[in-house]
Amino acid sequence: MPEQSRGPTDGLMQPRPLTVAHVLERAERLYAHKYVVTAEGRRLTYAEVAEHARRLATALDAHGVPAGARVGTFAGNNRRHLEVYLGVPAAKRVLHSINIRLSAEHLEYIVNHAEDDVVFVDRGLLPRIWPSAGRLPTVRHWVVMDDGTGGEIPSDPRILDYDELIAGAEPFTGSFEDAFTLADENLASGLCYTSGTTGPPKGVLYSHRSTVLHTLGTLAAGFVGLRESDVVLPIVPMFHANAWGLPYGAMMAGASLVLPGASAEPAHLLRLMAAERVTVAGAVPTVWTSLAPELRAYDLGAARVLLSGGSAVAPALSETYRAAIGLPITHSWGMTEISPTGVIGGTRTQHQDATEAEQVAVRAAQGQPLPLVNIRIADVETGRELPRDGRAVGEVQVAGPWVAGGYYRVDAPDSFTADGWLRTGDLATIDADGYLRLVDRIKDLIKSGGEWISSVELEGAIASHPDVVEVAVIGRPDPRWMERPVAYVALRAGGTATADELLAHITPMVAKWWLPDEFFFMTALPKTGTGKLSKTELREAARIA
Amino acid sequence: MPEQSRGPTDGLMQPRPLTVAHVLERAERLYAHKYVVTAEGRRLTYAEVAEHARRLATALDAHGVPAGARVGTFAGNNRRHLEVYLGVPAAKRVLHSINIRLSAEHLEYIVNHAEDDVVFVDRGLLPRIWPSAGRLPTVRHWVVMDDGTGGEIPSDPRILDYDELIAGAEPFTGSFEDAFTLADENLASGLCYTSGTTGPPKGVLYSHRSTVLHTLGTLAAGFVGLRESDVVLPIVPMFHANAWGLPYGAMMAGASLVLPGASAEPAHLLRLMAAERVTVAGAVPTVWTSLAPELRAYDLGAARVLLSGGSAVAPALSETYRAAIGLPITHSWGMTEISPTGVIGGTRTQHQDATEAEQVAVRAAQGQPLPLVNIRIADVETGRELPRDGRAVGEVQVAGPWVAGGYYRVDAPDSFTADGWLRTGDLATIDADGYLRLVDRIKDLIKSGGEWISSVELEGAIASHPDVVEVAVIGRPDPRWMERPVAYVALRAGGTATADELLAHITPMVAKWWLPDEFFFMTALPKTGTGKLSKTELREAARIA
Repeated sequence: MPEQSRGPTDGLMQPRPLTVAHVLERAERLYAHKYVVTAEGRRLTYAEVAEHARRLATALDAHGVPAGARVGTFAGNNRRHLEVYLGVPAAKRVLHSINIRLSAEHLEYIVNHAEDDVVFVDRGLLPRIWPSAGRLPTVRHWVVMDDGTGGEIPSDPRILDYDELIAGAEPFTGSFEDAFTLADENLASGLCYTSGTTGPPKGVLYSHRSTVLHTLGTLAAGFVGLRESDVVLPIVPMFHANAWGLPYGAMMAGASLVLPGASAEPAHLLRLMAAERVTVAGAVPTVWTSLAPELRAYDLGAARVLLSGGSAVAPALSETYRAAIGLPITHSWGMTEISPTGVIGGTRTQHQDATEAEQVAVRAAQGQPLPLVNIRIADVETGRELPRDGRAVGEVQVAGPWVAGGYYRVDAPDSFTADGWLRTGDLATIDADGYLRLVDRIKDLIKSGGEWISSVELEGAIASHPDVVEVAVIGRPDPRWMERPVAYVALRAGGTATADELLAHITPMVAKWWLPDEFFFMTALPKTGTGKLSKTELREAARIA
Repeated sequence: MPEQSRGPTDGLMQPRPLTVAHVLERAERLYAHKYVVTAEGRRLTYAEVAEHARRLATALDAHGVPAGARVGTFAGNNRRHLEVYLGVPAAKRVLHSINIRLSAEHLEYIVNHAEDDVVFVDRGLLPRIWPSAGRLPTVRHWVVMDDGTGGEIPSDPRILDYDELIAGAEPFTGSFEDAFTLADENLASGLCYTSGTTGPPKGVLYSHRSTVLHTLGTLAAGFVGLRESDVVLPIVPMFHANAWGLPYGAMMAGASLVLPGASAEPAHLLRLMAAERVTVAGAVPTVWTSLAPELRAYDLGAARVLLSGGSAVAPALSETYRAAIGLPITHSWGMTEISPTGVIGGTRTQHQDATEAEQVAVRAAQGQPLPLVNIRIADVETGRELPRDGRAVGEVQVAGPWVAGGYYRVDAPDSFTADGWLRTGDLATIDADGYLRLVDRIKDLIKSGGEWISSVELEGAIASHPDVVEVAVIGRPDPRWMERPVAYVALRAGGTATADELLAHITPMVAKWWLPDEFFFMTALPKTGTGKLSKTELREAARIA
């Protein structure tokens, strides 16, 4: 392509930056009457939420929290957390949402690595983090957010009360947005650490630009398409990849938000969904599994999109929802490094005349990339791009303005290609319509006798048995075949399926040499800090067994 | 706000630019089977359109068209024009769409001011521009796009045939998108001149960034919300403010496009809408007026959004549509300087329980700003910002990343505020929900006896009479009152309303001193090059009369 040689170069548009401040101030200007519903059913308008965020900004100044400082949160999905979500980036500090389910070792590593200056913590979660306080030297202030749990608050000069902090500060009355220049859109607005299955957790440092573009992505019609008439329930934690962008997305769109607090109890979530006429909800598959038995007891008729991410949803689970409430589950594929959403599932016009079975198969795919996101698959060994033919299997690589290009203060060259794309570690096909279909995580693939077995596909087959609630298939070291599949299964209450029954059930679905060598029955499968099934724990168990 | 003082500054996201190349390559990857329908009902897939755009890029190279050069188009809404829309910016040239209805004087001024290197022209439009060719020294090539009209083509070495040009070039096989760096997103991608009611036309130079962000705005759910299942009919010309972003928006969303060609004949447009199951269409009010009498003769049941812009739609016209096809007209407010869309109308959840009359009043407002767009009103004399109370009337000012910050190669300091916002020349109120309600153009406001009369409001009252098809109210110079309103009216075929009847009709609706001094009846009112009612011509007539 020739180089620019004469005439105009840059356009003459206003140098307006993309900033989280716009999300806050747009909600104030257009949607002041829309609201957040708390776990207790209390409603706060966006005008109130924004005013608290404006007071928070002044309080950060008063406490000498420098611009660019990391402000940690250790909190569930509640309205004070939302105020911090807004006020911290709008005031040019960096929101570092910390996973509350981490081990003390990882927790301390992360807070020290981020050099958090302040940490906002739910009162009920204080016992999980306060014992580490002595080993977190950068944290000058601990701001306790009263969640009604009534836990004890240590007597310590570093501890502040959130409500007092807010009440004691005047609201910032200027425009946060106007305080940003165009170059500032690249300032860091958020920081999330990956769960770190290998090595220490790694931080993804989001910019205002990447966050706003991802937020616009959540508004794109035909994908999630958040809109003013929505009522959005992020069940996925706000400390996990920014709750998939739902809090910022809802406020940008003018939708109301339902923040369910700390409880993931099925009856609590279902009551909220019915009472608040929730239209969009997002959760990991294990949560959707836990709600499934009670679906018909609630009026979920307002629901429009049920998003599931973190790992693949078995078609059987999605079809359970479709049968019970007329709405299948929609795949949302991504990861912390993708802000987190890259791909959204569902059928398109070309599937209108497809058979029901074909539509189920389309919905079982992860879906198509959002606008601005590019995906490709590459040969794991050579790195060569593979065809989009729905058959070639390769590692998924992702490019886009809301995709990480590096990790915070750590080199990880293996995570990125030479041309700057993210290597995801997921194996998939891409078809001619651009649909991504996950085959497996590279590390979850089972190598048996020189051939690959997809644990995801085997799990889907086993999960289609009506007695099965949870299933995980891993590769057990095997002297002859290198690895052989074994399955861990949790049955529904009253379920009676045996290993032989499950084998008979899946035999028509998979190749004979894919059949698991053994089935282990458990009451519940082990989970990671983000609620995903923990194959690491199962692998350790299998190694010992 | 404190300055960034320590810790991370910029986020670590991929430096991926926002470019029109992404729109093209996304359509290739995900929506290759979707299509453009031509005026003759022919279908071309996006794969074909994209391949032609790829050949066009190579042809531009072969003909020595430098990067950054302005490439003019003088064409209607057709598929070749769409190919140029895509191929020119993707290949880093600047798309300059020229209004085909300009006077020769303005046309020559614009092409010379833009220094167009090449002009792509519909064969049927050649007679309108070829006589100027000798006075357009920068244009090295004229590429004629055969539109089936069979007009004569002069024998001149500068004239090339579009189809031969495309057939003779190999398609560019690389990634256009990958040829852009982050800084390149500010490169100019498009150029549109305003119609220039005062002084010479002024050019708005769009960047790739502004164009892509505006395109994302057309996808925002709850506003226009273009989606894959849409079939989009831009009746608004592609030479007029980029057809309101509908061509790029449709391709980004994966929607199909119906390009109606040169004819604005009501039966032609209605046939296309019915036959192609059009879901979204955009046109100026005069077009919607022309379609209104025939609505019930066609099945328009697929329609989802009928956008109207350029000037306010009388509520009576919108209600005619609602009565006939169950769908009111949606306001789209903007201008060439806003890419062009700033504000979209319609009701929101807070109006669900409103009376029908209240909902009509909400739909008569211009609406709320799209994400990323900020609007405010300011006192015309002092420039002071006015309250958002639905009562204070001031000039609308606009800020946002797709809003012009200057004009191409001309100083126009009066068009922008000291803090860089666009001064629109429109007078309006903004209410507490952020709804913009136009009162008038500053220059169309009538000053009578020291008080202002809104010509828009008077026109709305007169247009609510069933016999009235078109109406314009202007201020006629008056020795005693300075100005007095006079009305120009076109009646429907068979309409019998007299001046006295119209006066009686509007007397209950407006202040007594607003009543027009005189009514003039015409068969049709004069229009500008973009199809808006031309008050300039009427003012000249009133001055002479």
